[in-house]
Amino acid sequence: MTVNFESEILILKLWRQIYQTYTLLKQCEDRIIKKHGLTTEQYAVLASIGYLGEPARVTDIAHWLERSTNSISMIVDRMVKAGLVKRVRSKSDRRVVHVTFTSKGENALKPSTRAMFEVIRKNLSSLSYDDKSTLFSLLGTLKYEILKCLNPGMDVEEVKRDESKQAANARKWLLRYALPSTPEAKRQGGKKGKTMR
Amino acid sequence: MTVNFESEILILKLWRQIYQTYTLLKQCEDRIIKKHGLTTEQYAVLASIGYLGEPARVTDIAHWLERSTNSISMIVDRMVKAGLVKRVRSKSDRRVVHVTFTSKGENALKPSTRAMFEVIRKNLSSLSYDDKSTLFSLLGTLKYEILKCLNPGMDVEEVKRDESKQAANARKWLLRYALPSTPEAKRQGGKKGKTMR
Repeated sequence: MTVNFESEILILKLWRQIYQTYTLLKQCEDRIIKKHGLTTEQYAVLASIGYLGEPARVTDIAHWLERSTNSISMIVDRMVKAGLVKRVRSKSDRRVVHVTFTSKGENALKPSTRAMFEVIRKNLSSLSYDDKSTLFSLLGTLKYEILKCLNPGMDVEEVKRDESKQAANARKWLLRYALPSTPEAKRQGGKKGKTMR
Repeated sequence: MTVNFESEILILKLWRQIYQTYTLLKQCEDRIIKKHGLTTEQYAVLASIGYLGEPARVTDIAHWLERSTNSISMIVDRMVKAGLVKRVRSKSDRRVVHVTFTSKGENALKPSTRAMFEVIRKNLSSLSYDDKSTLFSLLGTLKYEILKCLNPGMDVEEVKRDESKQAANARKWLLRYALPSTPEAKRQGGKKGKTMR
């Protein structure tokens, strides 16, 4: 076998870069979340409900977070006890359980998300708009390959369509949770614009 | 405040893309590691020792994995019980504890790393060499910003120099753990080549 070391070393470097970037970003996020009295897992569930819209099904939250329904169900149990969310049985189908915010939960989500989004924006500020687009697209190519590896035979086009649908919530989520609320922002939020793919 | 929604939405998309890509990659890795009878944490410690070279200090392993020394120390305790590593007190400084492989540990590391590297290579195969270089460099820019955010006043140039030093191990690590061993690969491995930044 002829080994192209330059290429192999780049793969190794990239593998480590992805690990390091994510791990450090998570440390950054954890620090902010902790300051706001939440655990990382609680924050993730609250942010999902905020993004998917109330009431959210446990299965949808799990899917959004790439976690198992069981593990999210256990986190939700603890969050019910902590008074952050409520479980509500669907009126149309009693087998389906929805999760909604308590006012304590929603009140914890807003300031932590604003603080977090501010830090993410700052961390990404050295990258131009085009750099960010390129990074998004390259990571996307990798992500779809990983999805195919995890689920052989998966229809990646279907995944892309799902992502397009969820993208419609991006603007609403930004206005509601991530950006400082000003009449100007709200007015602009009403305009039709690019959606999140 | 005038909000550039297109730009804010891209930040949000990118934030989620980083989360998803890493989370799915980790699922992929976990599946391989499990098949080889290791936990993710055990694998990470073994791979670090393999990369840093034996004997490795707990502090160096922790630094390499961006974890606290305490948490790595606890993992190492459990790994000693599982017969995967040994703790050896340094002869030159009795306060320093080194960690070395047992043959069981090293034997578990090689096949799992080969399987993992093969999957990483496959996942990255849709990206050209230039794409991979671009992805590495863009993630790097983000990573150094996050480091500055976590440690204000940190000398990022010093971090880069450290990374350069560690890069020298990439070729050795690839030959020893990640690539199928062939005389041809070994011959090539002896050549001087690009180092890992």
